[in-house]
Amino acid sequence: MRQDKILIVGTGALGSFYGALLSKAGADVSVVCRSDYPTVKQNGFQIKSDELGNWTFKPSQVLKSTAEYKDQADYIILCTKVIPEIDCVELIKPAVDSETRITLIQNGVEIEQPLVKAFPDNEIISGLAFVCCNRIAPGLTHHIAYGKLTLGQVNQAGQASISSQHLADLINKAGIESKVSEQILTDRWLKCLWNAPFNPLSVLSGGLSTADILSTQEVLIRKIMQEVMHIAHACGHPLAADSIETNIRNTYAMPPYKTSMLLDYERYQTMEIEAILGNTLSAAKREKISCPTLETLYSLMKLIEIRVNKIQH
Amino acid sequence: MRQDKILIVGTGALGSFYGALLSKAGADVSVVCRSDYPTVKQNGFQIKSDELGNWTFKPSQVLKSTAEYKDQADYIILCTKVIPEIDCVELIKPAVDSETRITLIQNGVEIEQPLVKAFPDNEIISGLAFVCCNRIAPGLTHHIAYGKLTLGQVNQAGQASISSQHLADLINKAGIESKVSEQILTDRWLKCLWNAPFNPLSVLSGGLSTADILSTQEVLIRKIMQEVMHIAHACGHPLAADSIETNIRNTYAMPPYKTSMLLDYERYQTMEIEAILGNTLSAAKREKISCPTLETLYSLMKLIEIRVNKIQH
Repeated sequence: MRQDKILIVGTGALGSFYGALLSKAGADVSVVCRSDYPTVKQNGFQIKSDELGNWTFKPSQVLKSTAEYKDQADYIILCTKVIPEIDCVELIKPAVDSETRITLIQNGVEIEQPLVKAFPDNEIISGLAFVCCNRIAPGLTHHIAYGKLTLGQVNQAGQASISSQHLADLINKAGIESKVSEQILTDRWLKCLWNAPFNPLSVLSGGLSTADILSTQEVLIRKIMQEVMHIAHACGHPLAADSIETNIRNTYAMPPYKTSMLLDYERYQTMEIEAILGNTLSAAKREKISCPTLETLYSLMKLIEIRVNKIQH
Repeated sequence: MRQDKILIVGTGALGSFYGALLSKAGADVSVVCRSDYPTVKQNGFQIKSDELGNWTFKPSQVLKSTAEYKDQADYIILCTKVIPEIDCVELIKPAVDSETRITLIQNGVEIEQPLVKAFPDNEIISGLAFVCCNRIAPGLTHHIAYGKLTLGQVNQAGQASISSQHLADLINKAGIESKVSEQILTDRWLKCLWNAPFNPLSVLSGGLSTADILSTQEVLIRKIMQEVMHIAHACGHPLAADSIETNIRNTYAMPPYKTSMLLDYERYQTMEIEAILGNTLSAAKREKISCPTLETLYSLMKLIEIRVNKIQH
């Protein structure tokens, strides 16, 4: 069987980890990496996994941009943050071939549409990662726990995608659970049910853990989740009636956890406010759903962003 | 004319400043002071005023508690913060005589009721200070700008109070504008119209000035002010129709300003969340007024408070 050609775009914690897994499973994996280019070009990535042990991931090609890719990609996997300053379409366009499947492993809701529009003839696969891993130094990624990847085809809704399954098989082969979902967009809304309260609240509280937030503001958390439920439903992605209960229960059972927005905030990096809250609010506006709590959180996060920008510049 | 006996309880920036003014005007002013006791006992207060010059305020008695007061107070002036750990009634009770007028120069709405209940036969005077002054060291107070004090009798509504006027006269005599209001409770709601958005937002934004907050989140500010307007109206304190416009315009004209909650937050001191937001929400609940934005702000401030408490202890 022919070796899969995979191009990972964005090699933070997520991109390096899943790239390393796919390489481990036998794929030909190249990477486009920005800030860590010199280190990765020379030494590849060191992966320290508490679950799978340590190994070196030597990408087939280490590139500064997709235009330099000297091959035909079967899969492009987008692992960048979803922030306004990154134009995902422009970023990958030079390496998209007629046969390339475009996969995104990213945060947020309603983030697929620009790719679906720009590449109408390519298969678009949306991926949700439930993983705890950190980039602890250039080219050094620490995989702490979890890793489950859920993949689903976006532009031929309702059909199980052979390509999604193939990608999931590779990840499974590398030792991390991965599965195909036939309702990946609904899965995104389900993830948003958790992200929409806990990400902004972890920042707005000045850095409290999910445990502290939930144990003192469960009513507020439920109110936010309820608003997300309404929006998801109006968007044609009704969530199971017990979704809120399940999320609350699971969060109580989790160890104290720092959200991705909080980690970005603590490093004065751009937060995924638009992908998680902005897109949720746009959907609410479009579907005429009232969500005063989410609106307030969004406004407050935009204020926090001003301060981060001042420190960045 | 007999010299007024005045006991100031709480000698932060406000208490020391107004105490110093009253002393300057000829009153016999004593103070109950907690943390700065040794310094004040020995040297009194140094007042550095950008407007009135520098002077030393030597209180008649410097006390650790009201029980030690060796006189009959014509006025007790409460200048403590309004926070749950301070029981204002218990704090002043030992020095309250049948003739004592109880004055409070404090933040928040609906803060008079406990005093009115506990001392039904005493005159209760509510005071609002528009002043910019800081305690910069033990016994050292810097008066930067403004100072206007508005005083009004609470428990005989509608009557101009001779005692309020007398106190206002003393402050005026010392060189700072002071006036009597016949609708001091409405004035408090008007002040809340500004405090309810800007105090919490300055903290939740991570320390932005009022100018930055207003220039980017005017819509949110207006929404919060509108909620306060509704609550004030329901409580029998309708504010002038142009109050929001006036407040927005005045805030644009102000130099960038740090709110009292932000100052407390930066020093990891207890913030007046209950006096400003908690009491507003209690009033809303009682009067059945919907205020989703204020509710969210309150919940978020309670989260911030958890973090402050962790650092305090």
